[in-house]
Amino acid sequence: MNRSKDIPEPKADKAGVRRHNLSLVLRTVHESGETTRAAVAARVGLTRAAVSSLVEQLLERGLLVESGKTFSGQAGRPGTVLKPAATGPAGLGVELNVDYVSVCVADLGGTGRVRRTVPLDNRALAPVEVLRRAAGVAADVLAEAAARDLRPTGVRLALPGLVSGGTVQQAPNLGWNRVDADALFARALVAARPPGAPALPVASDNEANVAALAELWFGDLGAVRTFLHVTGEIGVGGAIVLDGELLRGAHGFAGEIGHLTVLPDGPRCRCGSHGCLERYAGQAALLRAAGVRGVDTLVRRAEDAEPRALAALEEAGRMLGVAVSGAVNLLDPQAVVLGGIYPRLMPWLAPAAEAELARRVVSGLWTPAKGRLRAATTTADAARGAAALVIQDILADPLAYDG
Amino acid sequence: MNRSKDIPEPKADKAGVRRHNLSLVLRTVHESGETTRAAVAARVGLTRAAVSSLVEQLLERGLLVESGKTFSGQAGRPGTVLKPAATGPAGLGVELNVDYVSVCVADLGGTGRVRRTVPLDNRALAPVEVLRRAAGVAADVLAEAAARDLRPTGVRLALPGLVSGGTVQQAPNLGWNRVDADALFARALVAARPPGAPALPVASDNEANVAALAELWFGDLGAVRTFLHVTGEIGVGGAIVLDGELLRGAHGFAGEIGHLTVLPDGPRCRCGSHGCLERYAGQAALLRAAGVRGVDTLVRRAEDAEPRALAALEEAGRMLGVAVSGAVNLLDPQAVVLGGIYPRLMPWLAPAAEAELARRVVSGLWTPAKGRLRAATTTADAARGAAALVIQDILADPLAYDG
Repeated sequence: MNRSKDIPEPKADKAGVRRHNLSLVLRTVHESGETTRAAVAARVGLTRAAVSSLVEQLLERGLLVESGKTFSGQAGRPGTVLKPAATGPAGLGVELNVDYVSVCVADLGGTGRVRRTVPLDNRALAPVEVLRRAAGVAADVLAEAAARDLRPTGVRLALPGLVSGGTVQQAPNLGWNRVDADALFARALVAARPPGAPALPVASDNEANVAALAELWFGDLGAVRTFLHVTGEIGVGGAIVLDGELLRGAHGFAGEIGHLTVLPDGPRCRCGSHGCLERYAGQAALLRAAGVRGVDTLVRRAEDAEPRALAALEEAGRMLGVAVSGAVNLLDPQAVVLGGIYPRLMPWLAPAAEAELARRVVSGLWTPAKGRLRAATTTADAARGAAALVIQDILADPLAYDG
Repeated sequence: MNRSKDIPEPKADKAGVRRHNLSLVLRTVHESGETTRAAVAARVGLTRAAVSSLVEQLLERGLLVESGKTFSGQAGRPGTVLKPAATGPAGLGVELNVDYVSVCVADLGGTGRVRRTVPLDNRALAPVEVLRRAAGVAADVLAEAAARDLRPTGVRLALPGLVSGGTVQQAPNLGWNRVDADALFARALVAARPPGAPALPVASDNEANVAALAELWFGDLGAVRTFLHVTGEIGVGGAIVLDGELLRGAHGFAGEIGHLTVLPDGPRCRCGSHGCLERYAGQAALLRAAGVRGVDTLVRRAEDAEPRALAALEEAGRMLGVAVSGAVNLLDPQAVVLGGIYPRLMPWLAPAAEAELARRVVSGLWTPAKGRLRAATTTADAARGAAALVIQDILADPLAYDG
């Protein structure tokens, strides 16, 4: 038997303790949005004096600000309101999808402050060219952020593929194999920015994972902390959040519901398998089945009750329901969130999907009345989530960044 | 954003700290099997004097014993070897499956010390009668344990169904719905034991979950800490272990791979759905397809290369491979463990299953050469796992039990 997680690590040194406590205080303010020194002290279990000293250091570094207001919380007498700085250190997120690139700068509180989305047919171009164009958009956004006194400390890329160690191992819908996205983007960004601009560290992540974290952090989930997130893009992405933590899996590739088999002898998929969910409920498959070229047209035809559009949406919903039922039986989540193109298509997709869920989920676990199949929050997108991941790095070690 | 898990709880009181430290020391010895006071002190970050005092209390309560040996570990000078007591407080596990009941008493170190397995057709009897017979077997085992100076402090039932709050919500293969298994078993056990025997607390858990924990604690997994465990019984059970922790899900029902759809329009399942894995790879379905009545016969016919037996095994393996591929794409585990009847059938099941995995798992995640599909360890069964869960309760709060 092996249950070692409660057994403490050897004690850290003094400088390590200070770093840890600075992070603890900054994260506590970040989570509260607005709070006071007394409330922070009560929350983290340090003395009021220790917290005041840590807060001073964070104010000096420009990571926290005091507002003029005073606030009477549950703990202690009224105090000056503290909040994360809305200028200074920030995060840059770049969502690179099959047919667009979206760039967002978020401030230390997680609010998206600068945003640009550009349509881009990324399948038609070589990876190096795609990353060059994305870096061009990012450079524009960085210039605009600088004008607002926001200085991203790093870049997070969100990519529709299997990502590990800075490399996109495989992104079938982009046609990428073993692309060193971090290094290529970092180089392109230096080239796209004015001479002398500091080089920013770049890290990549799976787009569906980042979208799920964005939903967790910025969405309307209420008390939901365990959910499956399914994103309809050209392909179908998926991510699993368990008790507020992303499930990454043994190799960082968990959540690939798009390649769950719904019909063992179904049509061949780009991934090499047959009958994957993506072949029925991905944007490309769905538009093809409906005989239209864009999601706007699909929505219009569905609104007009055009039979082929309705049939395509019903079939996609049915297959989505089959795959999601399997995931629900395995994971027993509180909710399933549908993102990407799905929220706009919910009126036609959801009934068929709910019918499959009601039929296939081990009884008692799912009733349509619970409304556990829900649309993603529109303001909780992957670009903002990627920017917020950079913010997480700042929160984890505030001393690593100059204010 | 919400990352509160590092933020400490308010400090516990003094008695609480002592309880916690006693547990910490006992668990450390338990995990090590054999160790010394100095090694424990180094591991848990308490002083040698504090650990010696805690060890004295655990020795007095009969939870630890000293062996005559001395042991020179990495930390400090040679010391007397400490180990968990092999007599005294123990755990009683009862695995209640469709066609047998298996009872095990494990000592504080987790070793199975008394064991009895009895064939029992539990579908033919009312739940109260099944639990009465199982309690009869348990009473016999308790008598034998008492003769060896082993005194279980509680009972854990492992049942093939959805269990929550002491109630079997649903066990389709037993035909049970909302059966208060804990209360019924507790009452039956009192009736089956000699007058004056102390009443033991009873708690239930899902059999597949318990089997997975047994594999984690007692199996041959090596460094594997994230795995899917699939158990072939009359039905097909499943459990998911992530980084050494069982995934229970929002309602405690996670892991139900037996009801993952492998063919949306396949035959109706007892659960009410269609085309569940269980309808192809469960023992009942497999034996029916092979035209035999027992697993022994199936193995003999497969060894004789009887075509119908081979075809049934190949089809079960194929469907197992389809379902497991979906789970692997979702969870990205280090390994998949096949338990129950599957280990004996691996020579015929595994090739078909591996072929599906190689085809359906998002490339690079699975290669047959890695041997990630493996047979469960025979000594790591659910009855022993259930007994070990009682031990976990003792380890978590040693003061709650008299030695």
